Amino acid sequence: MLYPGNKNRTYQKTISHKNRGMALEAMINDTNNYYRDHDIALIYKKPTPIGIVKVKYKEQKKIIDKAYFANKSTLDYNGLYRGKYLDFDAKETTNKTAFPLSNLHNHQLEHIKKVILMNGIAFLIVKINCQYYLLPGEKIITFIEEETRKSIPYTTIKEMGFEIKENYQPSLDYLKIIDQIYFKEDL
Amino acid sequence: MLYPGNKNRTYQKTISHKNRGMALEAMINDTNNYYRDHDIALIYKKPTPIGIVKVKYKEQKKIIDKAYFANKSTLDYNGLYRGKYLDFDAKETTNKTAFPLSNLHNHQLEHIKKVILMNGIAFLIVKINCQYYLLPGEKIITFIEEETRKSIPYTTIKEMGFEIKENYQPSLDYLKIIDQIYFKEDL
Repeated sequence: MLYPGNKNRTYQKTISHKNRGMALEAMINDTNNYYRDHDIALIYKKPTPIGIVKVKYKEQKKIIDKAYFANKSTLDYNGLYRGKYLDFDAKETTNKTAFPLSNLHNHQLEHIKKVILMNGIAFLIVKINCQYYLLPGEKIITFIEEETRKSIPYTTIKEMGFEIKENYQPSLDYLKIIDQIYFKEDL
Repeated sequence: MLYPGNKNRTYQKTISHKNRGMALEAMINDTNNYYRDHDIALIYKKPTPIGIVKVKYKEQKKIIDKAYFANKSTLDYNGLYRGKYLDFDAKETTNKTAFPLSNLHNHQLEHIKKVILMNGIAFLIVKINCQYYLLPGEKIITFIEEETRKSIPYTTIKEMGFEIKENYQPSLDYLKIIDQIYFKEDL
């Protein structure tokens, strides 16, 4: 949309925020496709497990007639980057002052702990106030163990997290941050 | 089942081959559960992706009314072991003299190549003649590139593969072989 007398600003906005309306999940899928196509990393979204109740056959093909969405016991994404195992989840909150920990289920927290225990890389990508932060699993666990709060304040997220800037291609280059944290490289 | 006059043999069979009747997939799932419970590795079977056609609501719960099984573009299992990313598939053949390569789809082969390219560990666990072999992805690719055969002869499997002995717990300890091949340790 163009606003009179404000052409330049609007134009820049279109360039630098092409993903503004894109849901976080779509941005991550888009980024993962980019990583795959460019042989950078192999990261997949795990399909939601389905509990199948009834199956029928139609033209010799198996068709699911009744099923339900089961709960994932892990995080949404996992994969391979530079030989290492990565496991993470994407969380969006409309809360402007804090990230409610109710977004993180107990079994997900346990999973993060296990991944770290086995030298894998576990983290969250959190969208808050239209900004994206990568929160390393280690820091989330420390926060939860040391604090009694039921949410991580926005100011704390800015301190303990790493901002992922929106980009043109890939839209959310979180592996840049992973390089910086886990492979000890500068941006 | 007990056969008259053959009690001992049947009894021994029950002890040493408790998994004889178990499908390969069940043995691997059993083994992965053992690895998880003992903090050895985190390895999961990827759920089969489902294409959902119709969803309805019942008592405020989302229920899938019609769906189909989609094709997995990758291998069946992936996970984390000693910080490294693992990706593999389990294949069973009733053929006694060779493993037909038609069991390995082209996109699966491409996936194996990608995993290796990115320093991950990719392999197959093949059941042939009631024996279990771990075939490293690198060796499978070399075989396919150098040979024109449409199957891997049993004798070649024995040469290029690593036998995984059936065990009591876990039933198929394939990570022992992974240690040996990829972490340069002796059994």
